[in-house]
Amino acid sequence: MKHRLAEIAKVAGARLVGDGTREVGGIASLESATADDVTFVEDERRLEQALQSAAGAIIAGEFAAHTKTAKPLLVAKQPRLAFIRAARLIRAVRGQGYPGVHSTAVVPSSVKLGKRVSIGPHAVVGDGVQVGAGTRIGPGASIGAGVKIGADCYLDANVTVYAGTEMGDRVTVLAGAVLGSDGFGYARDPESGRYEKFPQVGKLLIGDDVEIGANSTLDRGALDSTVIERGVKIDNLVHVGHNVRIGENVVIAAQTGISGSSVIEKDAVVGGQVGIGDHARVEEGVILGSGSGVLSKKIVRGKGVVFWGRPARPLQEYLKQLAVLARLGKKEK
Amino acid sequence: MKHRLAEIAKVAGARLVGDGTREVGGIASLESATADDVTFVEDERRLEQALQSAAGAIIAGEFAAHTKTAKPLLVAKQPRLAFIRAARLIRAVRGQGYPGVHSTAVVPSSVKLGKRVSIGPHAVVGDGVQVGAGTRIGPGASIGAGVKIGADCYLDANVTVYAGTEMGDRVTVLAGAVLGSDGFGYARDPESGRYEKFPQVGKLLIGDDVEIGANSTLDRGALDSTVIERGVKIDNLVHVGHNVRIGENVVIAAQTGISGSSVIEKDAVVGGQVGIGDHARVEEGVILGSGSGVLSKKIVRGKGVVFWGRPARPLQEYLKQLAVLARLGKKEK
Amino acid sequence: MKHRLAEIAKVAGARLVGDGTREVGGIASLESATADDVTFVEDERRLEQALQSAAGAIIAGEFAAHTKTAKPLLVAKQPRLAFIRAARLIRAVRGQGYPGVHSTAVVPSSVKLGKRVSIGPHAVVGDGVQVGAGTRIGPGASIGAGVKIGADCYLDANVTVYAGTEMGDRVTVLAGAVLGSDGFGYARDPESGRYEKFPQVGKLLIGDDVEIGANSTLDRGALDSTVIERGVKIDNLVHVGHNVRIGENVVIAAQTGISGSSVIEKDAVVGGQVGIGDHARVEEGVILGSGSGVLSKKIVRGKGVVFWGRPARPLQEYLKQLAVLARLGKKEK
Repeated sequence: MKHRLAEIAKVAGARLVGDGTREVGGIASLESATADDVTFVEDERRLEQALQSAAGAIIAGEFAAHTKTAKPLLVAKQPRLAFIRAARLIRAVRGQGYPGVHSTAVVPSSVKLGKRVSIGPHAVVGDGVQVGAGTRIGPGASIGAGVKIGADCYLDANVTVYAGTEMGDRVTVLAGAVLGSDGFGYARDPESGRYEKFPQVGKLLIGDDVEIGANSTLDRGALDSTVIERGVKIDNLVHVGHNVRIGENVVIAAQTGISGSSVIEKDAVVGGQVGIGDHARVEEGVILGSGSGVLSKKIVRGKGVVFWGRPARPLQEYLKQLAVLARLGKKEK
Repeated sequence: MKHRLAEIAKVAGARLVGDGTREVGGIASLESATADDVTFVEDERRLEQALQSAAGAIIAGEFAAHTKTAKPLLVAKQPRLAFIRAARLIRAVRGQGYPGVHSTAVVPSSVKLGKRVSIGPHAVVGDGVQVGAGTRIGPGASIGAGVKIGADCYLDANVTVYAGTEMGDRVTVLAGAVLGSDGFGYARDPESGRYEKFPQVGKLLIGDDVEIGANSTLDRGALDSTVIERGVKIDNLVHVGHNVRIGENVVIAAQTGISGSSVIEKDAVVGGQVGIGDHARVEEGVILGSGSGVLSKKIVRGKGVVFWGRPARPLQEYLKQLAVLARLGKKEK
Repeated sequence: MKHRLAEIAKVAGARLVGDGTREVGGIASLESATADDVTFVEDERRLEQALQSAAGAIIAGEFAAHTKTAKPLLVAKQPRLAFIRAARLIRAVRGQGYPGVHSTAVVPSSVKLGKRVSIGPHAVVGDGVQVGAGTRIGPGASIGAGVKIGADCYLDANVTVYAGTEMGDRVTVLAGAVLGSDGFGYARDPESGRYEKFPQVGKLLIGDDVEIGANSTLDRGALDSTVIERGVKIDNLVHVGHNVRIGENVVIAAQTGISGSSVIEKDAVVGGQVGIGDHARVEEGVILGSGSGVLSKKIVRGKGVVFWGRPARPLQEYLKQLAVLARLGKKEK
């Protein structure tokens, strides 16, 4: 949809320099923008490229405030954030969805649906499920009995949600993710040598504004709950074990695994392919570099401190150890 | 369902201290137990907390045998195992399932179903599939032609089982897992530079009592079979390559990958995010720490010996190397 | 189907030594071959075993050219490649499929299907999808609106393809894989501390002859495209982030993750569990050993050069560093 730059600037929290009556209808990268698109630049060194691009308007950082140009500029402190908000306005509708409940979906009469709920073809909803207003459930998704889903959630195709899961509003779950699966807990019978399964009957509780990537797996609690607090963002193929607690606004990149009963406190940032042992604690604001590892029962501490390596150590230590090793290696025949 | 403590003690293999006519109807952790719940304690240091909890009864280790308390105790050598068995009695039924074959499931007449088989909505069963008594197949699951499934298995929602897979009794497969997919084998044509796919036409054979986690992938054999023996427990997002053999009662934690033609002998314990190269052999009873790696064609040996690191080495060696590196790193400017 | 050895030799590009009128109807490994099977041997040390096997015919390397034996031999420079081609002839049909569009599949009238397209039970195809001749879509697969699929593709059960994905001919996607999911990109609002999602509206473009393993996830581009070029082979549980470019004939083993905007140039070979940071470049023909890691923005260079470790370094360096560390560790008390 076409929007005037003045309106976009307002929504984006940006200061307009140029003609506010001009309209754009799309968003694009610097490389692919046309005259109908707004783009953004957050690195001053790319400003010149932006000005010479075909873009109809440019969202830029404060560094662009006094630039002489005929191209309309939207100057913002956080140009990426301003672009996100502009994009949300311009591209207001996501996908086409399947309006209403598709005739092939299985939805028993005990299910409570809010207004404007959409349930895709061949989705299966269990007894007593509650779905909030505006939520969309994709084709082939399977929702276990008694699950509670808030408003304005997206559960994409082929997602599985086990009984015992409850989620807040505006939760996004990408295709193939599994929520509330049984955790991995056994005791070995010393006589037979066989493993017997510990009961996995707890809940999985997911707060508002959580996003979960494709084919990720989040286990329910064993006896108590696994808890994902508000605003957590989880990438693809991530594993979250039983009884884990993840605090507000934690970000976890792809293929990371978190073992049972560990705690990731709020605002931590966890890179990709990180491994966290059971009963560990990653404290508030810690940054775990990609591929790092935290041993069972360990505590990692320090707001904004970057840890790297296996086992995880502060970045400076890690780099020194790498340097020593490289030097010694060179002497080796 | 309510059960008398005397009955629970018997099933759990525990010695009752207190009033055997008292009844409980649930299981819970120490923290959340109510008077209607049985809980357990395996660490003597937490006994006091257990005694002061609201729990209706406590399963505890031998350390509790002579404790003065009004609270009923069930004393067992293996309190976790005793709790598992008590829980199995108290929570006898799992989920609600979809009794019988759902009207939307696709089940050709050539399929042979045992008694009490349940097949969920939108499940698809191929020609000639055999399903043993009491087995449940979840919503949206896809079972390839000719697959053999034993009795009392659970295949959860959106599981895919390819043709060529055979599994024993009491096998559990969590949502989204893929069994019997083609392995990853190619030969490169030196003229065109293209890879041509090696035939992947072997079987995937799974023994009794095997459990497979959510979104794990187990490939079929290339020409022969991939074999998962009885009692193996596999966590979420694990990859098992073609022609792998996994021995009885092996346990494999989340996100571990096992490359083609490797062998994991019985009773080995494999941590999370472990990588095992092709044609390797992890011998009986070896313990591979989380994140460790075994190179192609290597043999790792030693019952109860713990290996760690990449490449995997005995724990003591690994710790010494870490210590040296840390010391040298500190001297580095 | 039975084929004469003379015909097989021709298709396989091999030189027949022995009776070309003899027929075989199957393929098998050395260990399991019967008189009706052709097998192959590429290691001269196993030739004797092959000659004594029950196989009806043996494809072998040039080393076997002058062997005295009554068993028919098919001598080829690339015996594995010759075996692959023989197998393709002998086992011409894959699976049984679901001929035509199954009555339970959801296929709107706006969908354009080529000839001989097969769509499995409970598959869901979105508006305006184009499917080329001979393509098979498995049970429970979900294809988003407007997706373009070429000819002779296989999309197996429970695959999800998001809107915005386009693929060429002869593409294979194993069960549970997710194509075109939203990438993982956010900007943090410094006031609220919350993450806001960057638009993920680009395409996922997949070339001819690409194969994608079970439960792998390939994200669409954010504003531009994620590109997988012709002949790329991707194993199970691999993650490909947004805006990644993978060049022709790249091979990527299981559980590897490639972060956003990285480039893997043609003919590179990437082992299992490799981690590649964002905006990195793995140049043409590089070989990344299993478990190795490439940091964000790094360039890894060298045709045929093997890199190992985290961070990835040339194999010789890596081995020397391991050796130093092992020696120093031994001195440590």
